[in-house]
Amino acid sequence: MRTGKFIAFEGGEGMGKSTQARLLADALNKRGLEVVLTREPGGTPGAEAIRGLLLHPPGKGWGPEAEALLFAAARADHVKKLIRPALEAGKWVICDRFLDSSRAYQGDAGGVGDTKVRQLHEIGSKGLLPDLTLVLAAESNHVAERLRARDGDASDAIGGRADSYHSDVNSAFQSFVREEPDRFRLIDGEGSIDEVHERIVDAVKDIAP
Amino acid sequence: MRTGKFIAFEGGEGMGKSTQARLLADALNKRGLEVVLTREPGGTPGAEAIRGLLLHPPGKGWGPEAEALLFAAARADHVKKLIRPALEAGKWVICDRFLDSSRAYQGDAGGVGDTKVRQLHEIGSKGLLPDLTLVLAAESNHVAERLRARDGDASDAIGGRADSYHSDVNSAFQSFVREEPDRFRLIDGEGSIDEVHERIVDAVKDIAP
Repeated sequence: MRTGKFIAFEGGEGMGKSTQARLLADALNKRGLEVVLTREPGGTPGAEAIRGLLLHPPGKGWGPEAEALLFAAARADHVKKLIRPALEAGKWVICDRFLDSSRAYQGDAGGVGDTKVRQLHEIGSKGLLPDLTLVLAAESNHVAERLRARDGDASDAIGGRADSYHSDVNSAFQSFVREEPDRFRLIDGEGSIDEVHERIVDAVKDIAP
Repeated sequence: MRTGKFIAFEGGEGMGKSTQARLLADALNKRGLEVVLTREPGGTPGAEAIRGLLLHPPGKGWGPEAEALLFAAARADHVKKLIRPALEAGKWVICDRFLDSSRAYQGDAGGVGDTKVRQLHEIGSKGLLPDLTLVLAAESNHVAERLRARDGDASDAIGGRADSYHSDVNSAFQSFVREEPDRFRLIDGEGSIDEVHERIVDAVKDIAP
């Protein structure tokens, strides 16, 4: 039934995920593959509206449980209306963040716990997992430079959290890679955009020889 | 720890829940109790914003799973920021709809299933249940008259669903009452507003003699 491949980009803030997701989509497109490039939270009109509530919460901000439920709701809409239909039509889907961001941010750094975040994904999206999850990681001082250069993009309700929160997020991603080496590839995010892109193209050969 | 009492009003569309919730709040207030009157989805700035997305969905409407997740997110915010603090301060909370609406609408009529709706409530709100849940029920032809008189209030994404959906909702509420007679009271919604109010005051004597 499912014929297309599903690749997710993951990692903390300022790792270059969006840039690299776009470059990989272009590269696969040039090989003649039909590629859908999307992002989370978002990707559909409903999920983009939820994204607005998550990044700019009304009132005093969400507690970690409400936040995890909102991410799962946005993902359910995204999977049902965009990702699953694309995969079933044989297209490749490249997504800037997916379930593992909820596991790292709400599950680990936010304290909701991995079991509950996975339960929400099972209920909302029947547990759909990417065929390959690329985790971008770089030295934290280089990341800080990139974040400063973004001018203000990290000022939303999640990007703007304490350093300790973001450091928990990064450690969580590292453990995911260790725990499920088949589904994850750790990508060295140091060096030029082209250098990192080459590493990604190399990693993707595992599912598209 | 919890000293206030928590009463929820439940039932299908056009049963007079909001009117009766307000009348009960007034009556308890006159007895010198501190009462918080609230509603779902809503009750806090965050939950009211989610209410907007639920009743007027961007795009083509939510699937049942995304809808259940959004209700659970709104409830998590409402419980954390309004209901629990009020109960812990010794106040009475009267809520127009709560968990059992999600069980009847998304769980039963929407097909998500009761187990999953309860899991979401456990994750989002640590499973908080009302001390007493009043289910208002009336003959369906009388309800249809009331709904017509409301002019257009039922035109939102949920109230405007097919008759068969609303009939499933009403049957679900009837089963909840049979399954958990201690937590529920079925209130006959036929007759004048005052007559129904008297039945409610009578039912509330079980928890406030």
